[in-house]
Amino acid sequence: MNSDLSSQQVKDIGEQGLLERLQRFCPPEIIGDDAAVLVTAPEQSLVVTTDVLVDGVHFSNVTTSAEDAGWRAAAANLSDLAAMGASPLGITVGLGLPGEVRVSWVERLYQGMTECLQKYNTSIVGGDIVRSPITTLAITAFGQVNPSQIIRRSAAAVGDAIVVTGVHGASRAGLELLLHPELGQDLNDAERTALILAHQRPQPRLDVLPILQKILTPNSQLLTSNYRLPIAGMDSSDGLADAIIQICRASGVGAVLERRQISIPAAFGHWLTQQALEYALYGGEDFELVLCLPQESASALVQHLDKGAAIVGKITPGLTVVLHDEQKKFPDQVLSLSQGFQHFGQ
Amino acid sequence: MNSDLSSQQVKDIGEQGLLERLQRFCPPEIIGDDAAVLVTAPEQSLVVTTDVLVDGVHFSNVTTSAEDAGWRAAAANLSDLAAMGASPLGITVGLGLPGEVRVSWVERLYQGMTECLQKYNTSIVGGDIVRSPITTLAITAFGQVNPSQIIRRSAAAVGDAIVVTGVHGASRAGLELLLHPELGQDLNDAERTALILAHQRPQPRLDVLPILQKILTPNSQLLTSNYRLPIAGMDSSDGLADAIIQICRASGVGAVLERRQISIPAAFGHWLTQQALEYALYGGEDFELVLCLPQESASALVQHLDKGAAIVGKITPGLTVVLHDEQKKFPDQVLSLSQGFQHFGQ
Repeated sequence: MNSDLSSQQVKDIGEQGLLERLQRFCPPEIIGDDAAVLVTAPEQSLVVTTDVLVDGVHFSNVTTSAEDAGWRAAAANLSDLAAMGASPLGITVGLGLPGEVRVSWVERLYQGMTECLQKYNTSIVGGDIVRSPITTLAITAFGQVNPSQIIRRSAAAVGDAIVVTGVHGASRAGLELLLHPELGQDLNDAERTALILAHQRPQPRLDVLPILQKILTPNSQLLTSNYRLPIAGMDSSDGLADAIIQICRASGVGAVLERRQISIPAAFGHWLTQQALEYALYGGEDFELVLCLPQESASALVQHLDKGAAIVGKITPGLTVVLHDEQKKFPDQVLSLSQGFQHFGQ
Repeated sequence: MNSDLSSQQVKDIGEQGLLERLQRFCPPEIIGDDAAVLVTAPEQSLVVTTDVLVDGVHFSNVTTSAEDAGWRAAAANLSDLAAMGASPLGITVGLGLPGEVRVSWVERLYQGMTECLQKYNTSIVGGDIVRSPITTLAITAFGQVNPSQIIRRSAAAVGDAIVVTGVHGASRAGLELLLHPELGQDLNDAERTALILAHQRPQPRLDVLPILQKILTPNSQLLTSNYRLPIAGMDSSDGLADAIIQICRASGVGAVLERRQISIPAAFGHWLTQQALEYALYGGEDFELVLCLPQESASALVQHLDKGAAIVGKITPGLTVVLHDEQKKFPDQVLSLSQGFQHFGQ
């Protein structure tokens, strides 16, 4: 790239100039009106979710390139759709920018968002760009779901198995490796790269939805005898412990988690000891789905998912979430949100 | 209000505490999941629009109370829906807040948004609240429209009449009166209040849509013989001149505006002279609709709207937008966007 161009700032080309540069990241048919028009399938409900990300609070140039910031922002919103059982229809991007931001940074941000969206067959369908003292990214994602297949936090029932769709702790470990490259000397290159990628390029689990559908659709060969709708669940963006506690709160139930069934990255085996479980429970940003299903459906689901998916516990009548060790090496431990992340906390 | 409570800051109650306070502004059924679920009517298209507003750039405590900032933000987004012919389904609100912002300010912001939304039978259906060095408001609005009734910028045809749904310039004049209370000494109290309200509480013209529908529906008694779909148009949020120029650009046509047909607030008669037309053309934020229709449909529409609605000109084959005086007191003048607002301009 020409060095003159790469040093160009937003204020050099103005809002109109920046919009023209960014239009190549949007489908041509949606450009030019006051709003985007999307076609929804008949009898589907619309699902809407929104996230705001602020420079220095939610992303930083230390650990996150512009492309990765874009990917992660898109992935987090697609994960919220997956958490409701919804397939994406598109996202809108509201961007606040200081005039001094490089145009190339903004283009790379959009590049990262678009790469993630394309992987899941969706796109940026609208947005707004304004001047702001601080770089701010507001994403709203839309999806659609058959009303009978909406995944709800409040639908967990006593006796349900708790399924995770993959390992937990990888994103947190990847962040640690980015912040402290001297750590994890026992990791091989592939393991190190995989953990860092888990942080930089998390994968929303939209791929789980068609599998769930097969297991839960009345005419499917895979239908298990004791299926029940709606499914309970959410994503683990704020950590596995948070997800289970939120589901239990919303459903008025408790849970027992089996310590040894919580699936963690294999690489943790020769790196982390105590921290492994802490990262898995409280690390966050793994963007897996945490689903509560009758036992037979849960087993069928885990069978059809990749390694890392597991039944990690079950729903109980109490209101507490207990971490249990079947080998009784550790005492039972009640999990709480206080170890989690509070945005305005002192 | 207790003075201890009114001085409470966002950081005193945390994100969770603030969310609990704000939940009373949302319908109870949408709270508690990763995303909101909305039901769309069959065979309607989904319309999506988004706006970002930054403290000190798009609103300020000098001219705008928290309630008014909220109302105006909601109104601008509803107006974008109206500009596409769409009825609102809801909005999401992404909010970035410094910890020092008063909780009561945030509540009044939501109060203002909700007042506007309730007037148009819609509500806040989701959102996100994060810490940020600067107060930032990102609103995304969703609506639905029968695909045949979408209003497009690109659909203007030579010979169409250009309809405005109300007066222009009132919002800009109201802002001037707020910034310089010593101005407009000849205005009576009602006139002054009306102009200030036009700025503080703009009305998105969603009320025009059912009237348009009556005029354009094949079985309606009001159907005019020469109706044509889609209608061309947009809202005048960035000024009347901007709206007409944008429509002409998108449609590959030109326009002639009749200087004396541009409807302005009656109060301008004994206050503004030269500025009246400037405010009307370039003031912005009047949030009227600017629609291009065959002459007969245009006349029928104006008849069914309140005073202030008018045919202000017609679409021509050229590519220029000309301001014309039928009394030939002023020479023809070509309108351009350069007098308009450019966010990153030097």
